[in-house]
Amino acid sequence: MIKFAQFGAGFIGKIHGANIVKHPRAELTYIYDVVPAAAESLAAQLGAKVASSPEEIWASDVDAVLIASSTNTHADHLSAAIKAGKAVYCEKPVDLDIARVKAVVQESTKATKPILVGFSRRFDSNHVGIRESLHNGEIGKLEMISITARDPKPPALSYIKVSGGQLRDQAIHFFDMLRWLSGEDPVEVYAAGAALVDPDIGEAGDVDTSMLILKFPSGALCHINCSRRADYGYDERVELFGSEGMALSRRKPRREISIFKGKSIIADGLHGGWFERMEPTFYHALDALIRTIEGEQIEYPTLTDGLKAQLIAEAAVQSLHTNQPVKINYWSPE
Amino acid sequence: MIKFAQFGAGFIGKIHGANIVKHPRAELTYIYDVVPAAAESLAAQLGAKVASSPEEIWASDVDAVLIASSTNTHADHLSAAIKAGKAVYCEKPVDLDIARVKAVVQESTKATKPILVGFSRRFDSNHVGIRESLHNGEIGKLEMISITARDPKPPALSYIKVSGGQLRDQAIHFFDMLRWLSGEDPVEVYAAGAALVDPDIGEAGDVDTSMLILKFPSGALCHINCSRRADYGYDERVELFGSEGMALSRRKPRREISIFKGKSIIADGLHGGWFERMEPTFYHALDALIRTIEGEQIEYPTLTDGLKAQLIAEAAVQSLHTNQPVKINYWSPE
Amino acid sequence: MIKFAQFGAGFIGKIHGANIVKHPRAELTYIYDVVPAAAESLAAQLGAKVASSPEEIWASDVDAVLIASSTNTHADHLSAAIKAGKAVYCEKPVDLDIARVKAVVQESTKATKPILVGFSRRFDSNHVGIRESLHNGEIGKLEMISITARDPKPPALSYIKVSGGQLRDQAIHFFDMLRWLSGEDPVEVYAAGAALVDPDIGEAGDVDTSMLILKFPSGALCHINCSRRADYGYDERVELFGSEGMALSRRKPRREISIFKGKSIIADGLHGGWFERMEPTFYHALDALIRTIEGEQIEYPTLTDGLKAQLIAEAAVQSLHTNQPVKINYWSPE
Amino acid sequence: MIKFAQFGAGFIGKIHGANIVKHPRAELTYIYDVVPAAAESLAAQLGAKVASSPEEIWASDVDAVLIASSTNTHADHLSAAIKAGKAVYCEKPVDLDIARVKAVVQESTKATKPILVGFSRRFDSNHVGIRESLHNGEIGKLEMISITARDPKPPALSYIKVSGGQLRDQAIHFFDMLRWLSGEDPVEVYAAGAALVDPDIGEAGDVDTSMLILKFPSGALCHINCSRRADYGYDERVELFGSEGMALSRRKPRREISIFKGKSIIADGLHGGWFERMEPTFYHALDALIRTIEGEQIEYPTLTDGLKAQLIAEAAVQSLHTNQPVKINYWSPE
Repeated sequence: MIKFAQFGAGFIGKIHGANIVKHPRAELTYIYDVVPAAAESLAAQLGAKVASSPEEIWASDVDAVLIASSTNTHADHLSAAIKAGKAVYCEKPVDLDIARVKAVVQESTKATKPILVGFSRRFDSNHVGIRESLHNGEIGKLEMISITARDPKPPALSYIKVSGGQLRDQAIHFFDMLRWLSGEDPVEVYAAGAALVDPDIGEAGDVDTSMLILKFPSGALCHINCSRRADYGYDERVELFGSEGMALSRRKPRREISIFKGKSIIADGLHGGWFERMEPTFYHALDALIRTIEGEQIEYPTLTDGLKAQLIAEAAVQSLHTNQPVKINYWSPE
Repeated sequence: MIKFAQFGAGFIGKIHGANIVKHPRAELTYIYDVVPAAAESLAAQLGAKVASSPEEIWASDVDAVLIASSTNTHADHLSAAIKAGKAVYCEKPVDLDIARVKAVVQESTKATKPILVGFSRRFDSNHVGIRESLHNGEIGKLEMISITARDPKPPALSYIKVSGGQLRDQAIHFFDMLRWLSGEDPVEVYAAGAALVDPDIGEAGDVDTSMLILKFPSGALCHINCSRRADYGYDERVELFGSEGMALSRRKPRREISIFKGKSIIADGLHGGWFERMEPTFYHALDALIRTIEGEQIEYPTLTDGLKAQLIAEAAVQSLHTNQPVKINYWSPE
Repeated sequence: MIKFAQFGAGFIGKIHGANIVKHPRAELTYIYDVVPAAAESLAAQLGAKVASSPEEIWASDVDAVLIASSTNTHADHLSAAIKAGKAVYCEKPVDLDIARVKAVVQESTKATKPILVGFSRRFDSNHVGIRESLHNGEIGKLEMISITARDPKPPALSYIKVSGGQLRDQAIHFFDMLRWLSGEDPVEVYAAGAALVDPDIGEAGDVDTSMLILKFPSGALCHINCSRRADYGYDERVELFGSEGMALSRRKPRREISIFKGKSIIADGLHGGWFERMEPTFYHALDALIRTIEGEQIEYPTLTDGLKAQLIAEAAVQSLHTNQPVKINYWSPE
Repeated sequence: MIKFAQFGAGFIGKIHGANIVKHPRAELTYIYDVVPAAAESLAAQLGAKVASSPEEIWASDVDAVLIASSTNTHADHLSAAIKAGKAVYCEKPVDLDIARVKAVVQESTKATKPILVGFSRRFDSNHVGIRESLHNGEIGKLEMISITARDPKPPALSYIKVSGGQLRDQAIHFFDMLRWLSGEDPVEVYAAGAALVDPDIGEAGDVDTSMLILKFPSGALCHINCSRRADYGYDERVELFGSEGMALSRRKPRREISIFKGKSIIADGLHGGWFERMEPTFYHALDALIRTIEGEQIEYPTLTDGLKAQLIAEAAVQSLHTNQPVKINYWSPE
């Protein structure tokens, strides 16, 4: 059994905690939250102990930590986990400050245990399926990727202001995804955007509607379009176009129901939010970490992957502001 | 060029006449209708002559006749065509009186030219496609057929009263289709039905909603369900279930349009009537006759096929009235 | 918390036990199995105690029992549960001997706690959805139901021999479903079938391919077709045709993936077995029982529903053997 | 009857000629082609006369001309038609030399008869349908357009060299379409591209794979992706994303057939070429011209529309070469 401690008892912490408990080869020992009452409530529900401080966790015999606390605490917890020799599942992003991310990546070169960054969409069965089609050669050589990502409604303006904006917060999942799907690091990005959903988002210096084109070293091209609002639910889909075919990760409907009436066929639509759609991926990502700890060779999103996605986002933001295509500057630890 | 004369200038006659004119290797010489004005109007439109009598046609040099006149005239025109050595495209049914059909089938053993009975659904590209899948062995040995056939609304009660009823008039197309698809003659039929759409149809001794089960010599089973009214348009689809797979001839939508809105995905529905859906099959059926006249070896629905479909319908009607499965009595000319 | 004891630690027992543990307002106290090692293993896994005898369970303070033991034990456990005042979730069928089922139904008139029979498909979200469409009036008055139910492969012949055959074992789910969907008890059934999948099934006096037509008092008709083998996975779908529209509970694909290649669009197919498809329904059925115990007014499949589905199956078997439509004889306790 | 003369008896000329003949209120009087044998063959087939020179046509009593001759002749024929007071259906592009196009547009300010430029996709029933959804307010305010356009295989290299390249030749249809759909003229375009299909195309200074982002004055964004080769047939689809929903013009399959086999559902794919998919649009475009001549108020693609699409293409080409977003310079006649 792999013993976990968890930082954070908020919305996503509840999901992760329940998944740890549900996993047949993991157990949840500690929960820590800066709001003790939150930690206590979740600990009671999941049969775990409340840690009185992060230090109690680092000194304990837990094998792994799940970092689901607020973003600005990720880097410190990662550093401590590396020093304490704990495996880590860290929610994204690593930190909004790229310098801090680089520092942690540098430290992680000494890590003895796996560190997984929570790009959980890599574990979505539909996305996994089209990646296999590409890697199996079914669709030939990759030439174009097209990604659509639309949330039903914008997050609170207060969140948007601290999130880094649409490209750093929403599009970042797809910056990771295009690297994971293609096996290539894009070299350049052009971004266009506007605040069409809510002028207050524009006032705050952000956009809510954006389109990007990225170029791969192979010449392949990638398009992403994002909206912070879709009247019809959470819409995420990916298209891989290759020299010998195309693979689609289609939309997933809520239910397989159709009503035939008058001149229309009315089918059940999409999920009401990203979470309903993506929930199973959290468990699969956790399972990947656990199997890695157990010694299995599994590909998973690393700290370096987390940094690269953020570096693409930085270039995209610069492109958005300058209306110029921008080269992406990657960085490697010494 | 193959010269055609046509009997009948009504709705379906207009379709056939236009198809003859459109066919690159056919021409329409004569039109005859018991209502001379109808013949004149259509002849003017299509550049054909009005025949003053059927005899004028039989005595002429036309190669083929298209019989699209009222059902009770089919048998006489067929007899005359056989005697005159003309090829024939005859609308279904051959005659509502089975004895007359048998007589014509008997006469046709002496026919020197092809006689095609207008089961034009045999030429629908979707249905042709699933039949090929079966015949190519793609789905293994046939075990079940399921056919759905629903008209948007019932024909006029006056028509229903002379049509022979739902099983002889609507289901008959599918009695032919199941033979054509399976390559087998069913041996027994059980039919259940009710007048749910319009009580007047029940008053007239007919049903408007029916379900049937037919048994094939191989043990394979066939289900047909028919309705005289579907709120959502013309709904025809066929499913072939085999030992190694299933082939579907799906519904065909009017247009490939979807609106995503709220909790629904609203797609364009079905055609407003059987004719909009099946129109191309009339041309393809005509083309099959023309190519047969030209010497090509093509499978097409014969007078015997027409008779067999009617004999299945008679057994089905008997089953409906007796609530017993009924053996189908086929008949062959001497 | 509602305390459960469970009879049976086999395949389906493992599912039910895990669902009880997973349910936030239920706990699993005892497990009993005639094979003590099976009970011990599952009890250890789920944190429950092994009951040394059924009597230990009846004498205990558990609120409810889950009967997932072999079919021939269901009736005795039900009787004892009624006497002991326990709520019950009983796997279907109640008993293969109709007289025993009637006896239990008679006893149950004195039951003080809910007894749910495991027709879990009533809790499938797709099926629930089309039932709501019908009950909301969206599709008008029901006129036809069409149900397709195909398992990927036949069960072991040894199982088939004791199962009561295809109609009592496989079709019975749909005998319940058509009552639940329509709100009507069918009055008559005609069944046709053959052993096309495996001649040994025919040797054993059973069929593996069957088609049925059932008549409702309202005049509405229902078609069911079943196969014990489908090359392409578990295929279950339901169509409700009404006077103002049609509602489909469509097939559910394994994943939403399509590959466009050459002349084809190749999508991910169906689940490999009924269980993968229907697994969530077991939890929902359990939840319905728990909420009923808690006092909520919820519709659930009762012992009477279980008996009615079996009486339809008996009539269907008789029809299959006599090739005659058979009236269904319902029965009510005094 | 509206009398037509036609320039050009090549592939597309044959289509247009047949459509004129088929139209109930049009007739084809003359055909002219620089290759007299081509004109003679088509004229014989369609029952038209061969014009010995363009002048014979301008001096005749024809009401309209259909210009389907080679691109470099379009401008001269247009000028002459304007002078002769003939209505015109002119295949796109007007001319590859923008100065000549402007000159013709200038001349056309004096035209007394309608001039339709052959952006026939405006008459595709699926595209028309989603435009209606937008214009009816069904999907709210337009925020994003996404267009995919992939040909099964590249045209001959010799054609590519004189065609103006992928953006001027293939993408131009969609530069018109986005204006027609949105009702806005885009202000800026960014284009990225590569020769991934065939290195010879790259050698010739062109690309075969391209992605574009265009900005509208309203802030709405448009993405187009084009490929000169798709293994799976002709793939054209359009997505309109609005503040209150999304409208899709989906792919159209060749047939509505699905085979369920093993782990897959194999449906019939797309058309083998753009022409099979778009053929009906030519007739509808012709019909729009005819109805306009007859006095009906119909929206149709004008010479100015033709010029605007070409000006967008020029900006796109400049963007492709400079890797900079480029403002689009529109031009109006005095």
